[in-house]
Amino acid sequence: MPVAHAAKTEPRPRKGIRTRESILRVAVDLASVEGLEGLTIGRLADELRMSKSGLFAHFGSKEDLQLATTKMAREIFVEHIIRPALAEPEGIGRLLKLCHGWLSHVEGHVFKGGCFFTAASFEFDSRSGPVRDAIADAMKSWLSVLERAIDVAKKARHLKASVNAEQFAFEIYSLAMGANWALQLLDDKTAMSKARQNILHRIKAVTTPSCPTIKL
Amino acid sequence: MPVAHAAKTEPRPRKGIRTRESILRVAVDLASVEGLEGLTIGRLADELRMSKSGLFAHFGSKEDLQLATTKMAREIFVEHIIRPALAEPEGIGRLLKLCHGWLSHVEGHVFKGGCFFTAASFEFDSRSGPVRDAIADAMKSWLSVLERAIDVAKKARHLKASVNAEQFAFEIYSLAMGANWALQLLDDKTAMSKARQNILHRIKAVTTPSCPTIKL
Repeated sequence: MPVAHAAKTEPRPRKGIRTRESILRVAVDLASVEGLEGLTIGRLADELRMSKSGLFAHFGSKEDLQLATTKMAREIFVEHIIRPALAEPEGIGRLLKLCHGWLSHVEGHVFKGGCFFTAASFEFDSRSGPVRDAIADAMKSWLSVLERAIDVAKKARHLKASVNAEQFAFEIYSLAMGANWALQLLDDKTAMSKARQNILHRIKAVTTPSCPTIKL
Repeated sequence: MPVAHAAKTEPRPRKGIRTRESILRVAVDLASVEGLEGLTIGRLADELRMSKSGLFAHFGSKEDLQLATTKMAREIFVEHIIRPALAEPEGIGRLLKLCHGWLSHVEGHVFKGGCFFTAASFEFDSRSGPVRDAIADAMKSWLSVLERAIDVAKKARHLKASVNAEQFAFEIYSLAMGANWALQLLDDKTAMSKARQNILHRIKAVTTPSCPTIKL
């Protein structure tokens, strides 16, 4: 390909990338409300008032679209919850920041229909294929982030050495999942404060005397 | 209507009821795997190798079918989990029997694709209408059963008077929901034993000295 031609066509993919991103942000919201399985190229085209053929240029199939949407949801999650926590110094503060960011995101509807991944998990958990694998991978990765934050807090001697990081991460995860469920299905406005209290209570029960005062 | 005619036609509705029940048991399993939203009269007819018109005689619409399926799932849940626990004497034993039955049902796949209600909850939580209301009603009722069992254990002086039954029921609920999720999505075989340990640990932390020895 001649250099001049490459230079002329260069801006197009960049614009394409921006468009693809903005499409996917709408797709994430739509999937969080109507389910990832209901996310078809036709349904998304309706929502965006775009032609189906325009969308087919970005995503070749429903599965491609679902995979790209899952990837985008993961990026949004990293941006809003994980990155701000990693900016905290190592120790209990990082774990609390992760829990706080996570609960705020469920509460504040970063994703329009509640937590994208919890909803997608239950939708795809009895199936097989690349979409289920992508969701499971994102969730395993999130559990690992929580687990590492617990280990870091143990090393900083903020949490007792006897804490089983894997078991404890799973417990915190379950409490937040329960709150998401009660908020979404039962419209229980107290769900988030119940989860905050439960999580804080559980963390306080395993802090050491040298741990700074904590709140959530 | 002449009495003789009524006597002659009497067996038909009874047979009809049995057929409807057996259809709905298949529908519950199917919905637990593929989702309640995916449960259409056409899909169920395929699964049962019945004609769509035969099914339309039982259920007038997709929504009717979804509502009847939810009702059947609720009856199965009561039969397998709640009724055996209510046969226990009042006290900690009843609460443990409820938790045990519930975890065993998640583990043992009473519903083919895992817990029908958890899956349906996340599918319908961002929608409105009678199906969502029926699911929310079933779940509220289950939380109340757990809550009453905690109150009964408090009255029997097996659990501390300071326990907040609503908060504690929600905590136990979340831990089991987390286990269901990890088992289904991550195929985590340790999820159920983690949930058992977590729940047992949480109950033990609030028992009184007069509480009998507990295990789960």
